[in-house]
Amino acid sequence: MLVISERINGLFNSVGRAIDKRDARFIQEHASYQVECGAQALDLNVGPGRDDGPAAMDWLVRTVQEVVDLPLSIDTPGIKTMTAGIKACRNRVIINSTTAEVRKMQALFPLAKEHDADIICLTMDERGVPNDAESRAEMAMLMMTTAMEHEVMPDRLFLDPLVMPIKAAQDQVMKVIKAMELFRTLNDPAPRIVVGLSNVSNGAKERSLLNRTFLGMLLGAGLSAAIVDVQDPQLMDVIKAGELLRAEKLYCDDFLRA
Amino acid sequence: MLVISERINGLFNSVGRAIDKRDARFIQEHASYQVECGAQALDLNVGPGRDDGPAAMDWLVRTVQEVVDLPLSIDTPGIKTMTAGIKACRNRVIINSTTAEVRKMQALFPLAKEHDADIICLTMDERGVPNDAESRAEMAMLMMTTAMEHEVMPDRLFLDPLVMPIKAAQDQVMKVIKAMELFRTLNDPAPRIVVGLSNVSNGAKERSLLNRTFLGMLLGAGLSAAIVDVQDPQLMDVIKAGELLRAEKLYCDDFLRA
Repeated sequence: MLVISERINGLFNSVGRAIDKRDARFIQEHASYQVECGAQALDLNVGPGRDDGPAAMDWLVRTVQEVVDLPLSIDTPGIKTMTAGIKACRNRVIINSTTAEVRKMQALFPLAKEHDADIICLTMDERGVPNDAESRAEMAMLMMTTAMEHEVMPDRLFLDPLVMPIKAAQDQVMKVIKAMELFRTLNDPAPRIVVGLSNVSNGAKERSLLNRTFLGMLLGAGLSAAIVDVQDPQLMDVIKAGELLRAEKLYCDDFLRA
Repeated sequence: MLVISERINGLFNSVGRAIDKRDARFIQEHASYQVECGAQALDLNVGPGRDDGPAAMDWLVRTVQEVVDLPLSIDTPGIKTMTAGIKACRNRVIINSTTAEVRKMQALFPLAKEHDADIICLTMDERGVPNDAESRAEMAMLMMTTAMEHEVMPDRLFLDPLVMPIKAAQDQVMKVIKAMELFRTLNDPAPRIVVGLSNVSNGAKERSLLNRTFLGMLLGAGLSAAIVDVQDPQLMDVIKAGELLRAEKLYCDDFLRA
């Protein structure tokens, strides 16, 4: 499974301040720490409500890739900020994200094609996140076909069934699993599936326990990638155990230290 | 999910000795402790290689149910020991287990009918455990139809896809998940599914981590019941979190203490 760190995000106060001050040292230490913790890719988000979005993202990408040689996921709803981030990237890029809104797909799939990028497809549109798994699968299918019209092949997509907070929408949690089962039937080989994991425990107590238990459930349902808190060692242990159980890595007794 | 304790088993030395000596106090304290830990049913196994199997199981059932008012799972390959256990039971009984062997089904389904028992159906036969999920599902179907011929309805069965040790058969682990997906298509409503969880980590290091990660994966795949080590608090936390995530219990902040 592809483990993407969620931590280089301007929503965290320390990161937001470091972006404001263009504090390269803080960002680089923080980015290197994500790799030490086991990140295989980094999600980069400059945070909301910025006048300098494109410039901040350009700086963030260049600063991070001076010390980290991993795929970067450019995480922004703004097309200009996205474009600035992608252009600054030296390694493989993940566009995070498009929705099923025509306006977004028409802008972002050509960008994915132009820059040979992977792209995360959120199964929602201008009406919001559907209440059921079937509508999520319909949107996934629409995005897969629209992507192909723009010559972005299914193997470049990550479908995202949209994890909702258990505290706000408890009945939605299993619909994510159900949606994943439907997504897997949409293509052969099955499409890749990603989630933003921590949203499940937003506002809840016992966040780590909820996150890692839900991650186990998603691993059983065929998750391909997750944007997670790699600084949570118990979560990372579940990922290591899950990779063994899914036979993605060969079992050895010392797998936690391997 | 139905949580069945695995701990009243003669394979554990202390339990085996207590059964030998007919030490009712030890067994009763041990059984009560399982309930404190969160067991909703107890699996009872007198251990292998006993001359006094039926008498030992009769004693074990009577001793346990003096202090515990829960369903009991009578766990033995011996028909006489099984019959003795069932006859001693006051509460709901789970027959653990039949296989797809004709000889066993012909003996155990009538017993289930006669005593209004639930019955665990291991998806294996005289040739052993199948290597693939599809053969497990075929055996499950055979057992469901044979059970119905004996007037044991599908809702009284627990299908068991047979968890194998990751250390001996790493490629079998995901076949259990695959088998569960197939089992769920065999009837409407979907058949109940049980596993003996701890077998996955037999002989491995980090047993608790492997057990609880795999349990998460199984919870995502629709597990109905599990025979587990209820004395493992981290495993029990995963069960509590999983029940919330599956919306089997209503979310509250203090769910771990609720």
